[in-house]
Amino acid sequence: MIESSGTQMYEFIEQLFPICRSITGNGVRKTLRAIKEHLPGLEIHEVPTGERCFDWEIPKEWNISDAYVQDENGKKIIDFKEHNLHVLNYSLPVNKEVTLEELDEHLYSFPDKPAVIPYVTSYYQQRWGFCLPHNQRTQLKAGTYRVFIDSSLDVGSLTYADLLIPGATDKEILISTYVCHPSMANNELSGPAVATFLTKWILSQENRKYSYRIVFIPETIGALVYLSRHINDMKANTIAGYILTCVGDNRCYSYMPSRRGDSLADKVALHVLNHKIQSYKAYDFVDRGSDERQYCAPGIDLPVCSVMRSKYGIYPEYHTSDDDLSLVSPDGLQGSIDTHIDIMRILECNDRYVATVLGEPQLSRRNLRPSLGAPRVLGSEYKMISDLLAYADGKLDLIDIANIINVYALDLLPIVETLLDNGLIRVVDEKI
Amino acid sequence: MIESSGTQMYEFIEQLFPICRSITGNGVRKTLRAIKEHLPGLEIHEVPTGERCFDWEIPKEWNISDAYVQDENGKKIIDFKEHNLHVLNYSLPVNKEVTLEELDEHLYSFPDKPAVIPYVTSYYQQRWGFCLPHNQRTQLKAGTYRVFIDSSLDVGSLTYADLLIPGATDKEILISTYVCHPSMANNELSGPAVATFLTKWILSQENRKYSYRIVFIPETIGALVYLSRHINDMKANTIAGYILTCVGDNRCYSYMPSRRGDSLADKVALHVLNHKIQSYKAYDFVDRGSDERQYCAPGIDLPVCSVMRSKYGIYPEYHTSDDDLSLVSPDGLQGSIDTHIDIMRILECNDRYVATVLGEPQLSRRNLRPSLGAPRVLGSEYKMISDLLAYADGKLDLIDIANIINVYALDLLPIVETLLDNGLIRVVDEKI
Amino acid sequence: MIESSGTQMYEFIEQLFPICRSITGNGVRKTLRAIKEHLPGLEIHEVPTGERCFDWEIPKEWNISDAYVQDENGKKIIDFKEHNLHVLNYSLPVNKEVTLEELDEHLYSFPDKPAVIPYVTSYYQQRWGFCLPHNQRTQLKAGTYRVFIDSSLDVGSLTYADLLIPGATDKEILISTYVCHPSMANNELSGPAVATFLTKWILSQENRKYSYRIVFIPETIGALVYLSRHINDMKANTIAGYILTCVGDNRCYSYMPSRRGDSLADKVALHVLNHKIQSYKAYDFVDRGSDERQYCAPGIDLPVCSVMRSKYGIYPEYHTSDDDLSLVSPDGLQGSIDTHIDIMRILECNDRYVATVLGEPQLSRRNLRPSLGAPRVLGSEYKMISDLLAYADGKLDLIDIANIINVYALDLLPIVETLLDNGLIRVVDEKI
Repeated sequence: MIESSGTQMYEFIEQLFPICRSITGNGVRKTLRAIKEHLPGLEIHEVPTGERCFDWEIPKEWNISDAYVQDENGKKIIDFKEHNLHVLNYSLPVNKEVTLEELDEHLYSFPDKPAVIPYVTSYYQQRWGFCLPHNQRTQLKAGTYRVFIDSSLDVGSLTYADLLIPGATDKEILISTYVCHPSMANNELSGPAVATFLTKWILSQENRKYSYRIVFIPETIGALVYLSRHINDMKANTIAGYILTCVGDNRCYSYMPSRRGDSLADKVALHVLNHKIQSYKAYDFVDRGSDERQYCAPGIDLPVCSVMRSKYGIYPEYHTSDDDLSLVSPDGLQGSIDTHIDIMRILECNDRYVATVLGEPQLSRRNLRPSLGAPRVLGSEYKMISDLLAYADGKLDLIDIANIINVYALDLLPIVETLLDNGLIRVVDEKI
Repeated sequence: MIESSGTQMYEFIEQLFPICRSITGNGVRKTLRAIKEHLPGLEIHEVPTGERCFDWEIPKEWNISDAYVQDENGKKIIDFKEHNLHVLNYSLPVNKEVTLEELDEHLYSFPDKPAVIPYVTSYYQQRWGFCLPHNQRTQLKAGTYRVFIDSSLDVGSLTYADLLIPGATDKEILISTYVCHPSMANNELSGPAVATFLTKWILSQENRKYSYRIVFIPETIGALVYLSRHINDMKANTIAGYILTCVGDNRCYSYMPSRRGDSLADKVALHVLNHKIQSYKAYDFVDRGSDERQYCAPGIDLPVCSVMRSKYGIYPEYHTSDDDLSLVSPDGLQGSIDTHIDIMRILECNDRYVATVLGEPQLSRRNLRPSLGAPRVLGSEYKMISDLLAYADGKLDLIDIANIINVYALDLLPIVETLLDNGLIRVVDEKI
Repeated sequence: MIESSGTQMYEFIEQLFPICRSITGNGVRKTLRAIKEHLPGLEIHEVPTGERCFDWEIPKEWNISDAYVQDENGKKIIDFKEHNLHVLNYSLPVNKEVTLEELDEHLYSFPDKPAVIPYVTSYYQQRWGFCLPHNQRTQLKAGTYRVFIDSSLDVGSLTYADLLIPGATDKEILISTYVCHPSMANNELSGPAVATFLTKWILSQENRKYSYRIVFIPETIGALVYLSRHINDMKANTIAGYILTCVGDNRCYSYMPSRRGDSLADKVALHVLNHKIQSYKAYDFVDRGSDERQYCAPGIDLPVCSVMRSKYGIYPEYHTSDDDLSLVSPDGLQGSIDTHIDIMRILECNDRYVATVLGEPQLSRRNLRPSLGAPRVLGSEYKMISDLLAYADGKLDLIDIANIINVYALDLLPIVETLLDNGLIRVVDEKI
């Protein structure tokens, strides 16, 4: 049922791409409503301007309908309607004539990437500005320009959404992604797209052991407001969490650990990366840059890490107009959702087992081993049976054993079922 | 007194080689009686068919007196009396004429080792069969063959033997080897041979600190029955144990760790291997295959490992008629017994020491250091004295210190004696 | 104020070089009085011959005024007044004629370094002797020689000095160096010279958190007597200690760990070596040879290590007349004092910090981060601010964080000040 989700996720990104998002405003609302079409249980929340969240407070709400720069001939040489990255995100409204010198103080471009429109924001200091390719900027002629931004910055609210999926226990797994980026594809529409379809998969699963908390938020301020409202529950219950960001291109996988690096979230992610993905780039927490900055902050300390494709801040198209629909692909998205489904599946089954008999059980009596004793007649299935029994000491969990015997945990699952069915191992109950 | 034991062990293997052993039956009894000639204190035990041992029960007793396959001319083309590997171990009796097609369903051979008779068993499923070189099997002509096996499978008993050698404390060292293999030399007559002569050496030692438990058992079922009868004592008292198997050839040493890998048994074995043997192949517990499967099973968890020559399952002659008297040698056996004697000697002396004076003692006053202070006049003996004193903190044991200062523990023993005699260190009493 | 101390230390070594020191006697007293000129608070102590210190007792006091060997023509062929290494340190007085054969039994030379006078001592066995270049020794002609040593070995005392500098807490840092070597420069006048000027720097610092214990002693016997008198205070209060020895040449740095190797003293030394010095030779405690033998002995266990230039026992001039004023240099001494000042500064500021707000604080509001959100506009200062906040969990100390983020701890200090001033972190009080 997941096979075609790569294409579906890609189409969903195409649908959401044109919307001008920011950390507040109607772009976020429109995006969340589109996600709710897929996830009817999604709850959308509004947080009023001025509400405190730890050291911060919710800023005024920003909306924009049009913006351009006209030259002396009335020609729009920079036009928000052509690409919403052309406006400095959170720009104040403006409507006046300026000289080139004055205009230039409000322009943003990347000299070392002269062909792209950069993505620039000014959430917490009031400015107006335009972003454009550096090549274009250097060609601007002296003269008078009209600058026009039809935006508003008013008391309003910040919008986010979440979905709590109950499981057999209150212990929960966090999936967090962000919805604040304007028209860029990998960073960030890939995250919401994969999060949406991963959640659909989670909802399709019966007998969930864990509860799931799915969070769609603006980056940083959204994580802070979400944490400030739910910190106690999340600290009490979260066993593992993953930030979905930069999961749409089809290049090398990347791993960003939690601050402590040895959480269950990291352990599962690394097992999947090492056994299924095999080639990936492991970053250090000092290279952090996404919402792990909040989830793993001192005193918050949630077990949250990320499995990405090309990491934010590293790939050449990052935070520019080149991060477009051609950068992400159904295959890239499919690889990411498959990886995260494996992570969820392993989390769900990662129990500790203990052998129920002392010494090796007599496997041949149960048709779990050939009755003929001869060299090299044992296949890999019997080897896994034997190994699982040899390490089922009630202390090692499934991943530990899989790591020791160098087998993918999901490949061990049928063996676990067989041994449980035969009464040769049992699950060790534990407070997680 | 040990010098010639390599030759004596080789001759003992020659004596035992023709006996057809299995996990039960008169071959085991005859073998144990031969061992008892060397170790009069050995106790031989019979465990009746049907007795439970953990998940298993003692099978019927198997004995065999003759077996062959005759061709239409009455010629014995496969003959148990030529090599007892020719019969599938634990074969039912049979006496009838069969076609080549029917015969072939009861033949066992190794296509990739076409010149050898393979060693094949069927302890727990009733079959009859013959083993032969694959080259011979492919030459068999269509026709009628007489198959004759004069064996019995009846209610009886399983036979094993043990010897408990008391020491100053109840804490004990386990030596375990097996006596179930028919005519093969390295795996397995080298184990019983070295175990027999190692036990003679242990008996010759005065002032043993530890007790010793020497166990001669059929593999797997023997270990299970032995453990089921002695598990409480063994868990309470065993400080280290070694399985003697594949200790007769003169090729590279091999090390099989205990499951946990950090037991005292492993620590001593690794010290001897690293300092005395130096070049050896270290295996992982996932490569296990001998009675460490039982001794190290979850819930049993004894500190048992193995120092072998060529490891079972790995060397080309393993479990074939090529594992014959030419594969083992007095030199190979001598190396193995020497290694295990060193292990026993280090276990006996591996105390924790604590310096009796604060700061360095004045060694020159005691003639333990030159009275002249000049560079490079200190020899290795003084260096060892100085190092032993510097690390005698009551927490490190002799092996820890030997490892730190990169000296063989047995070479430190005279230094320990000197410092004890001078009252400069004392043994730290401890519950082991 | 420290800039010119390399030259001052070099001049101080020049001043002290001609004095004939030993473990007792007027040479030590004269040396300590010269140090007291720089450190008026220094207290000089006399320990009488026969006083017990652990396993040892204070020997008789040795003094010497002249010594020579005359040939038959009355020519002084070996003359203490030319170099005080010419006399075996602690030589008994002698005045007689001897044959070459008799003389030779009292001569010391290094055949493998034939051009140097070796430094040889006989503190605890009474002898007389002369040291000379091996080249000279082999040229001596048969005949009669007059040997004359005007020395005394009488009941007296051993002299040492210390200086206790109070800080805000009783917890203290130990600096220890020795004053027993006759005319050699690196080992050992560099140690007392650097210790003297390092102490002047410590005294110049306001608001010392820690107390300091500065110790000038003869090697070995001096450390033992000092420890025997102060062991309880030192064990209760010493958080880190450093032996200053071989700190005057300008070759590669060396590191001698404490016995346990993981003390705070080691941690700070290694941070400075790794981040400031970068290229250095790390030795093992088995290579020990200076007073770490006493300070780190079992039961004493002080956290004491050494940061040296060329390590004693290793460099070719060690304990010979080649260890002269040309071997040490103002630059070498300056490097050593700078390194130890950094160690002291880091010890003083190595607190644990905890973030005062949950999540990241809003840095742009405090002008600690640019208000513009765009890739690659963050400089290294903001990166350090962000990293310090991300790791300020109350468990990691400043060095831990500096190691994690690969920054020199002293470069983090201004960041710490900024964050403390802004109330974004606070120091975690702790019992050290």
